[in-house]
Amino acid sequence: MIHPTQTTSSFIGVDVYSPILRAALVKGDGSVLERRQAALDSDASVSPQVERLVTELRDAAGATPVIGIGLGIPGLIDPQTNRIVIASDLPAVLRGDLGAELQRATKLPAVLVNDANAAAYGEYMVGAGRGSRNMFYVTIGSGVGGALILDGKLWLGATGFAGEFGHITIDPEGNECVCGNRGCLETVAAAPNIVRRTHERLNRDSTSSLSRLALNRNFTATDIAREARTGDDFALMMIERTGKFIGTAVAVVINLLNIERIVFGGGVMEAGELILNPIAIEAKRRSFQPCFEATQLVAATLGADAVPVGAALLARDTTQKSVP
Amino acid sequence: MIHPTQTTSSFIGVDVYSPILRAALVKGDGSVLERRQAALDSDASVSPQVERLVTELRDAAGATPVIGIGLGIPGLIDPQTNRIVIASDLPAVLRGDLGAELQRATKLPAVLVNDANAAAYGEYMVGAGRGSRNMFYVTIGSGVGGALILDGKLWLGATGFAGEFGHITIDPEGNECVCGNRGCLETVAAAPNIVRRTHERLNRDSTSSLSRLALNRNFTATDIAREARTGDDFALMMIERTGKFIGTAVAVVINLLNIERIVFGGGVMEAGELILNPIAIEAKRRSFQPCFEATQLVAATLGADAVPVGAALLARDTTQKSVP
Repeated sequence: MIHPTQTTSSFIGVDVYSPILRAALVKGDGSVLERRQAALDSDASVSPQVERLVTELRDAAGATPVIGIGLGIPGLIDPQTNRIVIASDLPAVLRGDLGAELQRATKLPAVLVNDANAAAYGEYMVGAGRGSRNMFYVTIGSGVGGALILDGKLWLGATGFAGEFGHITIDPEGNECVCGNRGCLETVAAAPNIVRRTHERLNRDSTSSLSRLALNRNFTATDIAREARTGDDFALMMIERTGKFIGTAVAVVINLLNIERIVFGGGVMEAGELILNPIAIEAKRRSFQPCFEATQLVAATLGADAVPVGAALLARDTTQKSVP
Repeated sequence: MIHPTQTTSSFIGVDVYSPILRAALVKGDGSVLERRQAALDSDASVSPQVERLVTELRDAAGATPVIGIGLGIPGLIDPQTNRIVIASDLPAVLRGDLGAELQRATKLPAVLVNDANAAAYGEYMVGAGRGSRNMFYVTIGSGVGGALILDGKLWLGATGFAGEFGHITIDPEGNECVCGNRGCLETVAAAPNIVRRTHERLNRDSTSSLSRLALNRNFTATDIAREARTGDDFALMMIERTGKFIGTAVAVVINLLNIERIVFGGGVMEAGELILNPIAIEAKRRSFQPCFEATQLVAATLGADAVPVGAALLARDTTQKSVP
């Protein structure tokens, strides 16, 4: 057997996400050799769809042996069983045993991990988390998630579900959340909720460039960020208010964990400083000063590679552990 | 030199708290051999006041060697320098170097630790935390604090300030807190703030037994808990509302850390199930269900011994580490 620490070996990481499945062939040092992507049909069996990308990447790998597969899943994973417990956006994966099916089909070990955990590990190993030992990762995209690296290791918690940053209550009287609570951060800061809040206010303000955009098509959080960058006051206010909500939850992490670094990733963070600044201002206002001063707030650097790279590196570590 | 792991050696733990200084002679297994207490004058130099109790306890120890001193401090401690950074209730300790002064006077190593951290460690080692590996400790008394045990070790964070549970924002528009934020848990759940809230509402409700009590003297949070236990509806409502606020912050800990056990200590928790039940109900309502189900919520068991015992055991561990 080839030892996985050989620099010539590689791993496949997959972001199992609807509507786009993203896979990467990743070297043991975290560098990406090849990328593949395909549309994901979230109602159909997921394993064969992933398998096709794995096959393509193994072909691309040529003589470089592929040692294992890591799968980033938008849901809760039980680390004991390697099975999905909850994945509301992927109904089909709950019907089967994705890890086992993929292992049978590819003859490679396949480890499942929550996608925020995967992204956090990617950023920690080769992205914006490098050089820290303790890091919190925040992802603001179609959902809001978090993950925790403590003393250089992914902190999974008692049953594998740690890091549910999106379900921190930031307004006790706020909107109902899918989780059953009220006023979770996700109810205001996830991309679809930013869009909803913007629409609600837009009815009262027709001077924004977003009003004109709304006449033609549904706009997205990315549109709001772009209009904010080009100087639209209203769009900027929406981004800033969103940053303020996120900052309230970030202060909680700073106060509880006195954490060295917080890395911000996910689609909404493409707004860059426009959103990172109000996050920092609110986090500072709402956290204990000595804790705030000890924390670096930085933007993620891996972009869409974060989940595949992190998942591949977790597959690397799992495989290495099981090698005698 | 006598090795500290010998069961015949002991340690002194002190709860440096105003108005009462509590000290205990503690064996290496956490059992308490002797207790001493004295009034603390928080404006006078603290070291000689602690030294007197240390001397008494060394006399009481007789032939059993005392190996080290642990001091639980209501403030932030820099673990690198063993010095106090902030301790708003103890102005005098900031003028000197309590650890160094005590070491000079007693010829014993003296380690300083935040009092919530000390209590958490005590409960973890010999109290309600026994048998867990990962535990969060909440203390609700004249202040609101927290501390974190991860993988069997006290989690201090990047600069030693982790666990600031009392400064979690639970109401973004709430009252101003001493920390500069608004709506921190401490602004509603610390004992003096429970009393303040009760007075505010009492003006509108004179049927409570607390109204009669208020005619004679200022009542305390302990009075409110006692009246609630004896069936006063109004007092019970105040305890339950306080539990609800605490539960909101507890849900955050559950969501972020997926922690195995949360232990509740401090004077206000003497209300027992009357407050623990509403805490659990609100925590369940506001946390992610799979995370909530993985968490045990339990009452602390060491009472006033928690800080001295925990501080003594931390002194034990520090001394053992420095033994070659």
